[in-house]
Amino acid sequence: MTIPKTMKAAVLHAAHDLRVEEVRVPALGPEDVLVRVRACGICASDVHYYETGAIGRYVVNAPMIVGHEAAGEVVAVGEQVASLQPGARVAIEPGVTCGRCRYCKSGRYNLCPQVEFYATPPVHGAMAEYAVIRADFAHPIPDTVSYEQAALVEPISVGIHAARLTDVQPGKTVLVLGAGPIGLLAVVAARHAGAEQVIISDVYPKRLETAERLGVTAAVNVRTDDLAAAVSRLTDGEGADALLDTSGNRSALENAPSLMRRGGAIAVIGLPENDAVTYRMNTVVDKELAIQGVFRYANTYPAGIRLVASGQYPVEAVITDYLPLDRTNEGFDVAMHQKDRAIKVMILP
Amino acid sequence: MTIPKTMKAAVLHAAHDLRVEEVRVPALGPEDVLVRVRACGICASDVHYYETGAIGRYVVNAPMIVGHEAAGEVVAVGEQVASLQPGARVAIEPGVTCGRCRYCKSGRYNLCPQVEFYATPPVHGAMAEYAVIRADFAHPIPDTVSYEQAALVEPISVGIHAARLTDVQPGKTVLVLGAGPIGLLAVVAARHAGAEQVIISDVYPKRLETAERLGVTAAVNVRTDDLAAAVSRLTDGEGADALLDTSGNRSALENAPSLMRRGGAIAVIGLPENDAVTYRMNTVVDKELAIQGVFRYANTYPAGIRLVASGQYPVEAVITDYLPLDRTNEGFDVAMHQKDRAIKVMILP
Amino acid sequence: MTIPKTMKAAVLHAAHDLRVEEVRVPALGPEDVLVRVRACGICASDVHYYETGAIGRYVVNAPMIVGHEAAGEVVAVGEQVASLQPGARVAIEPGVTCGRCRYCKSGRYNLCPQVEFYATPPVHGAMAEYAVIRADFAHPIPDTVSYEQAALVEPISVGIHAARLTDVQPGKTVLVLGAGPIGLLAVVAARHAGAEQVIISDVYPKRLETAERLGVTAAVNVRTDDLAAAVSRLTDGEGADALLDTSGNRSALENAPSLMRRGGAIAVIGLPENDAVTYRMNTVVDKELAIQGVFRYANTYPAGIRLVASGQYPVEAVITDYLPLDRTNEGFDVAMHQKDRAIKVMILP
Amino acid sequence: MTIPKTMKAAVLHAAHDLRVEEVRVPALGPEDVLVRVRACGICASDVHYYETGAIGRYVVNAPMIVGHEAAGEVVAVGEQVASLQPGARVAIEPGVTCGRCRYCKSGRYNLCPQVEFYATPPVHGAMAEYAVIRADFAHPIPDTVSYEQAALVEPISVGIHAARLTDVQPGKTVLVLGAGPIGLLAVVAARHAGAEQVIISDVYPKRLETAERLGVTAAVNVRTDDLAAAVSRLTDGEGADALLDTSGNRSALENAPSLMRRGGAIAVIGLPENDAVTYRMNTVVDKELAIQGVFRYANTYPAGIRLVASGQYPVEAVITDYLPLDRTNEGFDVAMHQKDRAIKVMILP
Repeated sequence: MTIPKTMKAAVLHAAHDLRVEEVRVPALGPEDVLVRVRACGICASDVHYYETGAIGRYVVNAPMIVGHEAAGEVVAVGEQVASLQPGARVAIEPGVTCGRCRYCKSGRYNLCPQVEFYATPPVHGAMAEYAVIRADFAHPIPDTVSYEQAALVEPISVGIHAARLTDVQPGKTVLVLGAGPIGLLAVVAARHAGAEQVIISDVYPKRLETAERLGVTAAVNVRTDDLAAAVSRLTDGEGADALLDTSGNRSALENAPSLMRRGGAIAVIGLPENDAVTYRMNTVVDKELAIQGVFRYANTYPAGIRLVASGQYPVEAVITDYLPLDRTNEGFDVAMHQKDRAIKVMILP
Repeated sequence: MTIPKTMKAAVLHAAHDLRVEEVRVPALGPEDVLVRVRACGICASDVHYYETGAIGRYVVNAPMIVGHEAAGEVVAVGEQVASLQPGARVAIEPGVTCGRCRYCKSGRYNLCPQVEFYATPPVHGAMAEYAVIRADFAHPIPDTVSYEQAALVEPISVGIHAARLTDVQPGKTVLVLGAGPIGLLAVVAARHAGAEQVIISDVYPKRLETAERLGVTAAVNVRTDDLAAAVSRLTDGEGADALLDTSGNRSALENAPSLMRRGGAIAVIGLPENDAVTYRMNTVVDKELAIQGVFRYANTYPAGIRLVASGQYPVEAVITDYLPLDRTNEGFDVAMHQKDRAIKVMILP
Repeated sequence: MTIPKTMKAAVLHAAHDLRVEEVRVPALGPEDVLVRVRACGICASDVHYYETGAIGRYVVNAPMIVGHEAAGEVVAVGEQVASLQPGARVAIEPGVTCGRCRYCKSGRYNLCPQVEFYATPPVHGAMAEYAVIRADFAHPIPDTVSYEQAALVEPISVGIHAARLTDVQPGKTVLVLGAGPIGLLAVVAARHAGAEQVIISDVYPKRLETAERLGVTAAVNVRTDDLAAAVSRLTDGEGADALLDTSGNRSALENAPSLMRRGGAIAVIGLPENDAVTYRMNTVVDKELAIQGVFRYANTYPAGIRLVASGQYPVEAVITDYLPLDRTNEGFDVAMHQKDRAIKVMILP
Repeated sequence: MTIPKTMKAAVLHAAHDLRVEEVRVPALGPEDVLVRVRACGICASDVHYYETGAIGRYVVNAPMIVGHEAAGEVVAVGEQVASLQPGARVAIEPGVTCGRCRYCKSGRYNLCPQVEFYATPPVHGAMAEYAVIRADFAHPIPDTVSYEQAALVEPISVGIHAARLTDVQPGKTVLVLGAGPIGLLAVVAARHAGAEQVIISDVYPKRLETAERLGVTAAVNVRTDDLAAAVSRLTDGEGADALLDTSGNRSALENAPSLMRRGGAIAVIGLPENDAVTYRMNTVVDKELAIQGVFRYANTYPAGIRLVASGQYPVEAVITDYLPLDRTNEGFDVAMHQKDRAIKVMILP
């Protein structure tokens, strides 16, 4: 296959300045593969960069291709690559780590200080016709998994990692706060880890309906129902074993300990706008709770791909909009302003 | 409800001397409940006592009621029991532990040296109209779970415990050797813990067919097919992450390390007749394998009941024969001599 | 030995009303032992009851014997007790759990909702000539361990439990905030678990000196020195692997995440007066920290006794005052008002 | 510093043909450092290659520099190396892993199939004046640690890894079989992980005496004493929590389960000549034991260096002979034929 010199890409120049434009196809290093991207989801972090031009210490100072939830077909491989051939269908794990530091060596490579993560300044993302990735982060997918499903392995990975950190096991009750894409796919991850009871909360009926398609055992609309009462009723007054917060809602986080069983664990995935959260430590100590930060994921892609390939979970139900690359701006608009209807917007470059 | 003074029970007097006869209803202690048994499975250990009058150091020196896979309805409760009322439907966890020793206190109560386990001399079992159990070992079941299903929580527990000890997780490949009741239900436990790929081996086509109903991804008849070749093909030459041996077959156990991925774990559940097993330690060390003995189970009943209640697994498919208590001898005969057809025989007292 | 009918005991009648008076020797249940108490430390919780008459939901509504850090000699055993004989020297683990609930069965008996804990209303404590305890919570001590040392196994247990919950291992750096008795003995627990680098902070020079006798590698007086700078210097800018907060100081807790290495764990042992603590979740998530409540301990006494018996740690260095039971009020006064000089006050009944 | 073109090295040409000869100084890759080796221990595997020309599938088909227990001074660094400077004193972790495979990524890099391990054909070792190693495997040591001590971090690592795999914790009893260098340093690793009771067995009085210097609580000469009786007496009939076999003695391994407490773990480190070991599985299952292969180590060097630097353990007591590089053949002779006197032979190139 002939690789073109240039390609179309969704490039963020500054806040509110996203352009689909022609850029150079990225250079292929000796350990890399070049992927013809076939699906790339819009993530809340993409939207945040779009809206503000920054996330914390990461600032968009130069044009950056967005997108880090991607899958596609390998079209070229670097000279040292033996594990993949052109034609391979892959899900892209979007953070390339050093493999040398203590975090990498001990299995927590998500904490690698040298990581180069897609669409995190100054690293380009994958919302483009082509993307490069080190070969060991391009995970083969079976033919039965679509590119769109494969792109979802990225947000599914967050759920898998959170479920591991909170020790979700068969027999446990998991409470997921927030039914956005991360929350909905965390439901799947929790069920897949054996949790028979999975409760979710949100304010949008559409999202709660989607949660039911994905197998929650209870969906609570906190606009109309009392979450604490529901959790108490569903757990014989004991509370949840694990709580996965994807809402980024400050008062939800502050209230989380009261919803827990003794010995439970709270995963903090979503960050509140103002990131100060006040906990009543008396409850945290008395129940011996763990409040666990969750930063991306590690060692999740093989499991995530198998989860999707098992066919047990209609994960694509979270995708509400499919748009070609040219209409990426429209996709961002949908993601920002149609939360009552849209969940995950998938760009098809 | 009036409790009668006597009841029918299947009493083993000596090897090959099992009588369904009238005995006293057991006395109710202050922490106990009395259960009207509605289902009690015949287990391989029951059969072993029947055939030989002993298992290892446990010898049937006095008449003993057999059966330890039981469920039924609570009909009376001891004076200190607050957690259960007559009418409660329960699965019986058949080993009462001391709650005082270091094993009980550290969460491994299956290793309690003071345990009193049903149908292990001199403790009576539950293949009878009534049985007593300490209230904390009588686990409530929802209305959607039948007594026959609830009785299966006992063998399911073995699978759950083995899956925990071998760290079965989403993304892993599990190989189950032997498709008897323990092996088949271990398949369910492994799938429930997230294993997408579960391979089983046996020699009886009927059992392998049942395994397919329970969700194995590959069933290998070792009479006609080469297990090593199948495992290699299904795992890209890597081997299984976890192997659960329920076959009690010496050569299967000796060959197990060669079927494993590096870093894997082998659970030894079934015991070979001659219990000497010879391992090539070079393989065990080179692959850094763990060979893990599995003794009964602990903290599995709530998870096992939820597994059944989830409705995701047709566990009752392992039950091939239902017989009333009067025909218990016929049930043992089936369990011993019809392995090509019968899997689990369930007695309905 | 003849057991008297009455004994002297330190009885709290209400806030600021502690009387050493004659009360009945407690009754011996069938599973209990009666202990002639030889040493009983004054704990911060004793002092808190003394000062306010309550801790959270626990209120002193009736006269209560104080004290829960005790050791002594068994003088009588209940009829079912086989494990101990009169004459046995024991450390008393002061919380009797049910052994029946899911927490007890799973090894986290500190979370047992039925626990009866010494000197927590309405349960009497052990600052008296005699105390009863269920036999399995009376742990034999070797002759080389004094009663005063054995009484310290209780606060040592808190440190052992916190070290386990934060995964203290050889090679790790542990930061202990607060050099009161709990903090100082947590230093010992951390070192014993293999931590080579243990840093402690406090404001009292005497306490920091004692910390040095107990083996800290750095002692920081936060009145004069910058803890963050010290931790950074001592950890090559990386931060601590585990932080054990025993200070109960709100701003210390709020600042804790900034002192941590990525992937680290913070144990919250001390509670601030106003128990609201505000965390910057951005740091918690970015570093993937765990904030772990620590509630008492479980399965620590055998290890704690061996730690003391090893002779490697001069744990008795934390005892600054020894007083007879008659002078218990004086002991409380010392504990409350001489923090610059006194650390642990030991009553010798 | 000027790096010479050639150096002296101990080169194994074939079984029993070890020559100290002039060879090229190894080439420095961009991620490597060049180390002026100052100490390199002779390991049992070096001796095995010397005696037979092979270990399992690894065959000495071409001249190979021996030695993998090394420390020295960095004298040159590759162009991409920022973490080390010439002059740095380092312990060399002798296996360079890929950092790309599932084993590396999950923290078990000792199982990396691409590992290049010193003195394992066809990879050269470090018994030479110079050696290269990828910079992330050259671990800085403090000034207080000698090169000879630093070279011992390699065998100490085996003990640390084995102690982790068998969950050695404070309060546990560890039994070490075999008091060669690996066994003696495993004693230190076990003590450092908190085991207060460490029992060792061997047949050489000199080795048992050294074990006592290193802190065992009991040393059993199995030529004259009954190990089973000793273990039973020292553990109140319960058995060891963890057993680390470094003896490679077949009957010792076969007997190991009988020495264990229920729930214990056996680490298999040494391999018997004939690697077939027969276990009585009844004991393994009844006690729910784990038999755990131990293959090298991972993530142990920082902890091992801190262990040595702590000054608590006179690890250098295992070094009985110091020889210059020219006398390496003499060193091998000592290692092979003076087991009653010599333990670790250290070559000082």
